[in-house]
Formats: sequence, structure tokens, C-alpha cells
Amino acid sequence: MELLVVNSNTSVAATKRIDAAAQAAARAGTTVTCIAALAGPQGIDGTLDLSIAGLETVRAIARNRTSYDAFIIACGNDPGLAGARQVTSRPVIGIAEAGILCSWPLGLRFSIPVLSRSKVALMEDLVRGYGLERRLASVVPIDATTGELIAASPDAVLEALLGAGRVARDRDYAEALVLTGSIMSGHEAELSGELQIPVISGLAAAVKMAESLVDLGLSTSQYFSFATPTKVDELNGYADLHDVYQSRAST
Amino acid sequence: MELLVVNSNTSVAATKRIDAAAQAAARAGTTVTCIAALAGPQGIDGTLDLSIAGLETVRAIARNRTSYDAFIIACGNDPGLAGARQVTSRPVIGIAEAGILCSWPLGLRFSIPVLSRSKVALMEDLVRGYGLERRLASVVPIDATTGELIAASPDAVLEALLGAGRVARDRDYAEALVLTGSIMSGHEAELSGELQIPVISGLAAAVKMAESLVDLGLSTSQYFSFATPTKVDELNGYADLHDVYQSRAST
Amino acid sequence: MELLVVNSNTSVAATKRIDAAAQAAARAGTTVTCIAALAGPQGIDGTLDLSIAGLETVRAIARNRTSYDAFIIACGNDPGLAGARQVTSRPVIGIAEAGILCSWPLGLRFSIPVLSRSKVALMEDLVRGYGLERRLASVVPIDATTGELIAASPDAVLEALLGAGRVARDRDYAEALVLTGSIMSGHEAELSGELQIPVISGLAAAVKMAESLVDLGLSTSQYFSFATPTKVDELNGYADLHDVYQSRAST
Amino acid sequence: MELLVVNSNTSVAATKRIDAAAQAAARAGTTVTCIAALAGPQGIDGTLDLSIAGLETVRAIARNRTSYDAFIIACGNDPGLAGARQVTSRPVIGIAEAGILCSWPLGLRFSIPVLSRSKVALMEDLVRGYGLERRLASVVPIDATTGELIAASPDAVLEALLGAGRVARDRDYAEALVLTGSIMSGHEAELSGELQIPVISGLAAAVKMAESLVDLGLSTSQYFSFATPTKVDELNGYADLHDVYQSRAST
Amino acid sequence: MELLVVNSNTSVAATKRIDAAAQAAARAGTTVTCIAALAGPQGIDGTLDLSIAGLETVRAIARNRTSYDAFIIACGNDPGLAGARQVTSRPVIGIAEAGILCSWPLGLRFSIPVLSRSKVALMEDLVRGYGLERRLASVVPIDATTGELIAASPDAVLEALLGAGRVARDRDYAEALVLTGSIMSGHEAELSGELQIPVISGLAAAVKMAESLVDLGLSTSQYFSFATPTKVDELNGYADLHDVYQSRAST
Amino acid sequence: MELLVVNSNTSVAATKRIDAAAQAAARAGTTVTCIAALAGPQGIDGTLDLSIAGLETVRAIARNRTSYDAFIIACGNDPGLAGARQVTSRPVIGIAEAGILCSWPLGLRFSIPVLSRSKVALMEDLVRGYGLERRLASVVPIDATTGELIAASPDAVLEALLGAGRVARDRDYAEALVLTGSIMSGHEAELSGELQIPVISGLAAAVKMAESLVDLGLSTSQYFSFATPTKVDELNGYADLHDVYQSRAST
Repeated sequence: MELLVVNSNTSVAATKRIDAAAQAAARAGTTVTCIAALAGPQGIDGTLDLSIAGLETVRAIARNRTSYDAFIIACGNDPGLAGARQVTSRPVIGIAEAGILCSWPLGLRFSIPVLSRSKVALMEDLVRGYGLERRLASVVPIDATTGELIAASPDAVLEALLGAGRVARDRDYAEALVLTGSIMSGHEAELSGELQIPVISGLAAAVKMAESLVDLGLSTSQYFSFATPTKVDELNGYADLHDVYQSRAST
Repeated sequence: MELLVVNSNTSVAATKRIDAAAQAAARAGTTVTCIAALAGPQGIDGTLDLSIAGLETVRAIARNRTSYDAFIIACGNDPGLAGARQVTSRPVIGIAEAGILCSWPLGLRFSIPVLSRSKVALMEDLVRGYGLERRLASVVPIDATTGELIAASPDAVLEALLGAGRVARDRDYAEALVLTGSIMSGHEAELSGELQIPVISGLAAAVKMAESLVDLGLSTSQYFSFATPTKVDELNGYADLHDVYQSRAST
Repeated sequence: MELLVVNSNTSVAATKRIDAAAQAAARAGTTVTCIAALAGPQGIDGTLDLSIAGLETVRAIARNRTSYDAFIIACGNDPGLAGARQVTSRPVIGIAEAGILCSWPLGLRFSIPVLSRSKVALMEDLVRGYGLERRLASVVPIDATTGELIAASPDAVLEALLGAGRVARDRDYAEALVLTGSIMSGHEAELSGELQIPVISGLAAAVKMAESLVDLGLSTSQYFSFATPTKVDELNGYADLHDVYQSRAST
Repeated sequence: MELLVVNSNTSVAATKRIDAAAQAAARAGTTVTCIAALAGPQGIDGTLDLSIAGLETVRAIARNRTSYDAFIIACGNDPGLAGARQVTSRPVIGIAEAGILCSWPLGLRFSIPVLSRSKVALMEDLVRGYGLERRLASVVPIDATTGELIAASPDAVLEALLGAGRVARDRDYAEALVLTGSIMSGHEAELSGELQIPVISGLAAAVKMAESLVDLGLSTSQYFSFATPTKVDELNGYADLHDVYQSRAST
Repeated sequence: MELLVVNSNTSVAATKRIDAAAQAAARAGTTVTCIAALAGPQGIDGTLDLSIAGLETVRAIARNRTSYDAFIIACGNDPGLAGARQVTSRPVIGIAEAGILCSWPLGLRFSIPVLSRSKVALMEDLVRGYGLERRLASVVPIDATTGELIAASPDAVLEALLGAGRVARDRDYAEALVLTGSIMSGHEAELSGELQIPVISGLAAAVKMAESLVDLGLSTSQYFSFATPTKVDELNGYADLHDVYQSRAST
Repeated sequence: MELLVVNSNTSVAATKRIDAAAQAAARAGTTVTCIAALAGPQGIDGTLDLSIAGLETVRAIARNRTSYDAFIIACGNDPGLAGARQVTSRPVIGIAEAGILCSWPLGLRFSIPVLSRSKVALMEDLVRGYGLERRLASVVPIDATTGELIAASPDAVLEALLGAGRVARDRDYAEALVLTGSIMSGHEAELSGELQIPVISGLAAAVKMAESLVDLGLSTSQYFSFATPTKVDELNGYADLHDVYQSRAST
């Protein structure tokens, strides 16, 4: 099985971390290729970055749409998820979505740490957009910018996440913690050991979900929302994507 | 007062229609300029088109962000709305959002016609994403592609909308109808006359809302979700938008 | 354009404040007339006052229903709003409703300050009754009775609102503040300057919304909920309103 | 135990029917007195009527507030319920509210028949206002005006309700039917026999709930929403209610 | 009227307390019999206990299904409620459900104390499962195990409940308190006196509700969810319940 | 990896079908053992059967709790799921839950076929109990008893499911179909081919989810809802489960 993991930003360092974490999560027999968006922000810090990264993620998946069995969007807010599902019927998984879904059998309430107070409402709206808000105990901000977290020593990242996790558990009754930011990955074991609640890496959960869907032979529904429109449109300036409308029938 | 209306697609014909409708809605003293996205699809037919059109709409607004008092996104699914609110603190209004809000004082239930069954769930999710689903009576599909509607005689468009309106009113108890598609504009009076319920043009409502917010001196909150991140990022390949991060403080 | 603003209580001082604020919000060409209810409480402090004020507000609008283009109910809980919409098809706007709707394009979460802890649940239920609770960050009480606030120096009122605003923003992540109480009006600029988030005067927003609806030629739906029943009823003891049933067809 | 049942309209015939039904529901030892509003509409047909009837119902209860152990508002939309709870701490029950609550232990979904399509949204909003919408299968309109129903032979009323009940059960999976209109009372047994689902008279349920609350020694919470404001207000023109503010402490 | 109260656990002491409280709540003419489950846990502390107690409660009711007019499940999480409604069409009431419903006419927000933080999410889900979460102010844990509470002096139990009640009222704006745990019963008067809000014993409320439903001649709907399946099934190992399928038609 | 699949009923034929389907879904290296409940109904047809089957399922898992890596409850309404999560911290998956979660990445709306109209509300409540109702397009009944379906030829079962699937897709806009009944398994491929939407076997999805959770080293949260109470309780009559309280610390 061939999986493509797309880092929605253009940071080489982040791509390497994501690659390592995705490789670690894949089972024997699954080949994981990790690429970064060809253009766009180095880090995703808001709605402007998400607009750019969303489109670049769609492009990355469109470009590779016949070469992989499933696709993973490795960015905390799942940019481009809806768009990507229209360029291929093969499974496309977002790591926020996968991490949240994975919490369901593990406990009745989950929390999500985010990197700043500015991201709380956007993450809450993402969860609501998925219709998965009922078990959301809280979105808990830690006060650090993406850049600082990457620059920080692993210990500092771990400390910040531990603090958010304790608030989630002790104040908000979270029974599980979901890590949606790809740079948060790798701390699951230590966090879980300290907090004594399951800590889910959205990226690892996405790899498992992709493997599962491919195993089951399931593909994205093409009947309503993600059907390919029957139309001719030159997509002026987006020749790479134009191709999608004409070739999809055969994928 | 100077308003910029952005047609999110690249169709010249659609831009002309939108321009005419927006001019008609503006009050004396409001200057409306209508432009189309510089690149992207001719018509917006799904999540791929929305990804492209969303980014091109953000770009169009970013490019003009210091030259207008407020901005209107003239496309049925408000592509790029969240992104655009981060490139300027001046009001940015989506025509779906404006049309729906405008229905509140007019009746207890509203319906929205859409151009095909494939668009029902996406529109429902848009309304839910705004947290405005409580008064949504229904999203009613008419069976026509965007292209066919544009090509059709005005009478055919009107007929299709009338049929959807009757279903909305008689089956779903809609007390008002909201037209979010820019190409539906211009039929409000006839529809309202036939259906005997208020029929709201989202585009006209957006012009009024933009005028109102400028009158009131209100601007988009920059405190949390739409704050400009303090960061340096070259936005590789998006030099036009890179500029936003450095100049916004002074807008 | 002629707008009638109805102060739902009988306080002369409050009516003067409301008049001044409404005049300030109206654009050139809009004539605003502000009247008080002819009978009822001096201030609205609970459900009993609201029952009386609601009916007196309906009466005030019914009495003037053919003389104005639109009507504004200038009282924090929008008393009489549903009833007034049945006595005229011309737009009737509540200032709570208008202020809340106005927050939509400005930020993802809004809060509402109220004058005491006793009013929290009633305001939450009002927002839920409108189906607008999804973006409600919180209702924040300040501890003051209506009488005390009116008696207090403007500085004291401002201080109390600032305190509530800080709680709304820092504890509840509110991105905008909505002032629904008419006596809170006039502090928007200072509050916004201090809090660095948009602060909306419901009264000013209602004036703009009334102007917009009249501009657009829209009127209240008469199809279902606000249709005039076809019936003969003497409305024993309410001769002034009885007249409504017989004359509405021609308004 | 002394219960006061208030018919919110001024129809003598309706008051007699309500009286008979309430007497029939009372247990031995409960004395039921049924009065009509002193002023207002003969029948309640919309939001204007509800505004008047609401206040007149509050007045009727205020006038009698020290003479009865509990109060029942016998009108399909519970007019004046919130206001009445502030004029006395003794239990006040609405028949819509009581009928709906009574359905909870009897089945997982309930439906409510209403007299016309114009009343559907208002009833749905009433149920939502109570926060009881989760088990609402549907509000089903029968096509008859209040006047016509009263004029009609009992058989005609029964037929209309049967039709609505079959739709509720067979289309909407209702497991119980709640009759909130006081004029619908008296048909429960026949409806239930035909439909083979429980049919609840809101009026009878309210009598039982009033008896239960008095038995349990429970009274309306005076801590927040229904606390009596500590204020002096002449309630200009409402001398009968003014008295409430001054005397309530001793009730 | 004959009511059967089933203590879902096997504690003799708890059964005695429940018996006393239920007797006290019954009106003259109502005979209350209180029994304990024949097998299962001494106290209900989690989902395993609830699974056992649920079935044993169903059995206890099934065994006595033709001998009583209505049944009450006297355990804080209403174990076996859905199952019991299929073994008899006579009313079956849970004390959590009854207590919550009883709060509706008494105030706009209710809170529920629970015995530990581990029970918060389960109680919230129970309330949501009933569709009654809209008025839930909070579930407030007190830190005590069931065993400790029973062992403690009444004063200690009262103190713990008072603390939870103050949090519910002052932090969460609860206007009423619902006691669902049967061992909490008996403290209503003192709690209410101290907190100045209504405090409802779920057990007493259930007795009243059972009396009311029997008075009204209402029984559980047998049309959809609680219909007896027409089938032959030996219920291997559950001979006592097997009997239900064959005899129900005649109850 | 060792998985235990528990058929919650006692039908040998059903157990065989479930075994075959689970084996087919397991990947190489996963050993699946399928057992039936030791006692209880032959088929699960309502809330009484669910009460029995729920406890028997908990017992089956408790008995085997140290011998398998994860557990699957193979019955359409996930009986015993909450209870089983307290007897072991190793993953326990319900096939309804798993099938529904699996639909998330595949389409925006899912429907669930059930075997009769009596099961619609119970299934809707199950989905709501999981907090997963936002994307539920509908629960669609087919008119067949469990027994008849098992007895019927495979073609008849397929026909019935096809009919329900068409209603779900064409009337309710379902983009995916979730089969929760274990006896519905095996028809996914044909249904999907005919309906042209993804059709998910809950059982197969559960096998994948169990494999994924074991791969990721995740276990059920023991912090709040599923923590083992620290207590001594003989569980009178349930000696097999009593053992759980004493031994869990070491699992």
C-alpha cells in the first residue's frame, strides 16, 4: 500500500518530523512518502495561511492522484480537505479529523491543545464543522507561537503540552487528548504517561485510518458533495488542476 | 464610500451582472467597483473550484485592501471569507452570510435554493458553519447546472426558482427565501410577487450591510481569530500576499 | 425615510438618551422620531415588566403603523417584537436582535453584558430564542441595577462595562461585544478603544438595519407566523388594537 | 388544595369547556376554580393576541395570587407564563409545557397538532424555547380556524385531530400525541383508542403537575430569573400590578 | 393505587431509606411497596454496576408486572428504564428523569450533584440521552464515595451537598437543584432553606409522577420503541423474562 | 494480534456469519476468535433483549479480558459497550460506533438501515448518545423481522437493503450507508455497486479500528467515566464479574 502524506507548509524541518512520525506509524507493507507543499507559508498561523496552504495541498494531491492509494493532510486544521476529496476518489484523511475520530472509543470527552488563544475559536469551529463537537471538552491554548515551539527544545514543548493537558483533564474533565498539530507529534507517550489519559497523535491516527480504508476497499463518495462536475472549465491560471476535470472519470 | 465587489469566478458575463445588481443596490454616495478574480474557474461548481476561487478572492481583496472602505465577496458559498478577514480589518461581507442575516427580522424560517442536489449538503454545512442553522427551513435544489442557467433565458431561470420557492414555502414552511447565488440576482421582485414571501438578494443585502458597517465605523475584530500573526514568512510563491504581513499594522 | 423608535419604558430621561443616540446613528435623509410607551414601568427589570412593556410597545407601533417606514424597539430584551410584527408588515427591528446580527461579520464570538446576575438566563434564552446562540461566548453580568446605572456618572457606567468586557474577552474569548441595553449606548467608542475589540450599539445597528430593509423594499413575511388572522374579534378592552385586524389589508 | 385555572381568552364557551375538563382531572380534595381573562381576544390566533392575552393572564394571576395554592394557564401557547412566575412564587403551570413534559416517560417521540399551518413555526419555537425540542417528532397542522373548530360538531374536531395524529405517527414516528389547545381537550380517549398511542391532554397534565408541586411543597425559584426586583416603580397605568412589587415579600 | 419502588442495588440499608422517603411522598390512598434487586452490586458506582443493576431492575419489574399500577426505579442513573418499559405498558418512572422534569416549571436552569468527578460525564450523557440538556446548568461533583456517604453522619452528607449546591448556584446560575441519588433524599428541606432555591428529590418527584400518570390513565406507548416484538425466543438462561413475551398481550 | 468478537445473541447461525465476516476483514497477522453470548436471546429485537444481551456481552468480555488485545461487540446497537469498557482497559469497539465513525472521511451525510419502524427512534438515540447525529441523514426502516431476514434468501435481504439505500440516497441525500446489523454484513459490495455510494460494514470497520488502536498502543481512558471504582462489593449473584474489581489493577 502506498500512502502520500502532504505537509501543507513549506518548512523542510517540519516535513522531516512529519515523515519520521508517519513512517513510525505505518505498518509493515505500507510505504509512506512525505512531501511538502511546493509553495506557501513556512508555518500555518491563521486564515490567510490556511487559504494558501489549502490550495497548495489540493494541488499536491491532485498532482499525485493516480500514484498513491490514499492521502493524508498533515496540518493541524486539515487545510484543503474538502477540495482534495474532489480531485480523487481515493481516501483523503485530515489529521485533525482522524485524531478526533480516534478518541471516540477511548473516552467520553476529548480536548485539543492549540498553540495560542487566537486559535481557539477556529479550532472549535473546525470541530463543529465536522459535527464532532458533542464530546469536545475544550480547546486549550498554550502560549507559544509555532516558530517558538519548533525552535524550542523538546522539553519545552513537552512542558507546554503537559500544562494544557492538565487543564483539559482537571478543569474540563477531558478523558483523552488529541494532538492535531503535526509538530506536537512524538510526545504522545510521555504525555500519556504523565497525564494518565490516552494521548492521540492525529498523524498516527490518520495513517491507521488510511490503511483501514484501503484495506476495506472504500473510497470517497462521488454521489453528491464530492462528485466531479460535468463541465468544461479552463481554470484560468491553474492548468495543473484543469487536468482533473478531464481525467477523473478514469481514476 | 467606496465598496469593492469581488466576483470570485472569472466569467465576464457574471461580473457584468453582479456589477449591475450591486450598483442598483448601492445608495447615493456609495461608489461600487466590481472586479473578477484574476484567475480560476469560470463558474464555481464544487469544492475544488471553491479552493481556487477562495484564494483568488483573498488575493483580489489583499491587492486592493487600502483602496476601499469595505469588501463584498459575490459568490454563493462565500469563498475566501475567513482568509480575507485576515488581510484587512475593514469589513468583508459574504453574500450568503449577508442574505441569511437579512432574513432574521423578516420571518421565522428561511430557505435557500441551490443549483443542484450535489450542492445541498455543502450549503447546509455553510449555514451550520455560520451557526445560523436554527431558522433554516431547507436547502432546495433546482436541477440545472450553472452553465445552463446562465445560458437559459431569464424566464427559464425564474421558472426554476419559482418551483424551488414553492417547495420551500409549502412543504418546508419557509417564510422567506434567500438567494445566495450571484446569478440568481435580479429575480427578487418577480419571485416575491408570485410567492408572496420576502425574497432576499444576498448581493443587495451585502451592499447594505457594508454601507451600514462603514457608517457605524465598525471593523473586523483583530483580537483573536483574525489577528495578524507577528511573524516573518516569505510565503514562498505568494509574494503578493507576503506583503500583507508586513503592512497590515498601518492599514 | 421615516423611522419610529419606541422606548418600551416610560422614563423621560431614557427616552431622551435613546433619541439622541438614534439621531446620531441615522444617515442624512432619515428622519427619526422617538417616543416612549404611554404606560408601564419606568425601567424594565424582569418578566413582569417585560409583559407590560411588550404590550405597550405593540400598542405604540400599532398606533403609528401607517405613519412610518420602519419601527425600532429600543429595549434590551426586545419586548413586543413578535406581536408588533403582526400589526404591520413594515419592518420592525429589536435592538438586541440587530446588535447580535451585526456582530456576525466582525468576529467569531460575541458577548453581551447585562445589568445583574438575575438577567443572565433570560438573555441567554432570548439569544437561543432567536437561534443565534452558536456564536454567543457569554452573557456577562455587571452588578448594578438599572436605576443605579442611570443615576451613576457616565464614568461609573463605563467602568462597569469595561470590567464585563474584559471578562468576556479574556475568559470567554469574545471577539466582539454587543450592547443591547439602550442605556448602555454612547459608550461604544471608549469601550472599543480600551478593549481593542468591536463594540456594537444595538440601537445604532437597528437604525442601520431599518434603513437597509427600507432601501431594499423588504417587509415582514405575512405568509405564516405573522399573517393577520382572518377573523372578527372585538379584543374586549383593547379597542385601539382591534382596529388592526380590520385595516391591515390596506397598509 | 385550591387551584386557579385561567383561560387566557375571553370566550365564555371556552371557559366552560376548560372548567369542565379541569374539574374532571382534579383529584378528590382539589378545588378547581376556572376564570377567564377580564379583557382581550375571544380566541388566540397569533402573536398580537398572545401579547394581549399574556398580559391579561398575568393580571388574572396577580389579582388572585394569595388566594390559591397554584395556577394553571389554560391556553395552547402558555401566554404570560414567564411574567406570572414573577408575580407569585407559588407554582404556575402552562398546559403546553405540562403536556410536553408528561410525554417524556410515555414514549421517545411526541407530536403536537396545531390548528393551522401558520402556527407551526410558533409552536416549534415555543418547544425550543422550553429546551424540549429533542423529542419533538413534529408539529402537525390541521386546517381549521379556532372559530370553526369551536363551531364544528365534536365529530368534526375529532376527525381533524385523528388525521393529524395519523400523520404524526405514520410519517413522523410519533409515539405520543400532546394536545396543547384547550379546545382540543376531551378527545383524548377516543384519539388514543383509534391511534393506539398515548394522547395527553395538556390541561389534565397541568392539573396533575400543580397538585404534585403543591404536595411536594415546591415553589418557583426566586433566586435569579424570577426574583422580584427591589425597586420602586409606579407601573404607570397598571396600578393593579404595581401592588405586586410592594407586597410580594410577604406572600 | 399500588406503586412498586425498586431499589436497583442490593443494600438493605439503602432500601430502607428509599422506602421511608417514598412512603413520605405518597399521598393518602397510594400504597407503596419498596423492594431491592434480588442480585447485583451493593452500591452503583460505574458502568459495570449499571449493566448488572439495569438487568436486575428489569427483572424485578417483570416479576411484578401485573401486581402494581406503576413502577419507580430508585437509582440515580435510572438503570433498566428502557428495558422495563418493554416488559409492561404500565408507567415506569426513573428518579433522575422525574426529578429533572420536575424542575421545568420551577426555574430556567438546574444542576445535579454527583458523588465524584468520575460520574460527571456519565450524568451529562444521561441528561443528553433524555434530550433534557438545554436547561442543565451543570453537573457538580462532591468528593465522596457512595459507601462513605452512607457511612457518614447525615450532617456530613448535608455539608457536601450544600457545597455543591453553592457552586451550582453561584458559579453556574442554577435556579434549582435536582437530587437524583436515592441516598441524597431526605435533605431537600434543609438544602432548600440554606440555598434559597428549590431542591427537588427525584424519588419524591417520581412518586408524584407515577400517581399522576395512573390518575390520567396513561400508559407507555407500545407503538414503536417499546412495542413487544412478535417473536418466539427462549431467552436462554432467562426463563423469568421469557415469560414476558408470551404474556404481555394480556396485561 | 488477538481479537475477540462477541456476538451478543445466542444464535449459532448468526455467530457463524459474524465469524466469517470478521475473519475476512482481518489482516494477515490478526487472529480473530468469535464467540456468542453464553445466555440470552437468539436475536436482539428491542430494549428487553438489549438489557440481557448487554450484560451477557459484558460477561463474555470480562471472562476473556486478559486473553485478547481488543474486543468487538458484534450487534447492531452495541449492547454492553459502556459496561465492557469498565472491565478492561484494552480497546472495546462497537460495530455501530465503528461503522458510523468510518463514514466520516467518505461523505458528508450517512444513513443507517434498520429492520423495522420500531427501531428507528432507538437507533437515532444511539447515534445521538454517541454525539454523532450531525451527519446522520436518516435512519431508514426496511420492513422485515430479524428472523425473516435470516430465513430469507440472500437475494431477499439484498433487495430490502437496496430499497432502503435508494430512499436514503435519493430522499435524504445520504452520501454513504452504514450497516450496523451484523446480519446485514456481506452485502456491502453489491449494495455499493448498485447504489454508487460507499457502503460500510460496521463489523469490518470495527475489526480495522481494533487493529489500529492496538497498533497505536492506545487503551480506554481509565481516568473518569471508565475508571474502576475502588470498592469492595460482592456483586451478589455475579461472582464471575466480582472478580473484575479485584484483578483489574494488574491487567
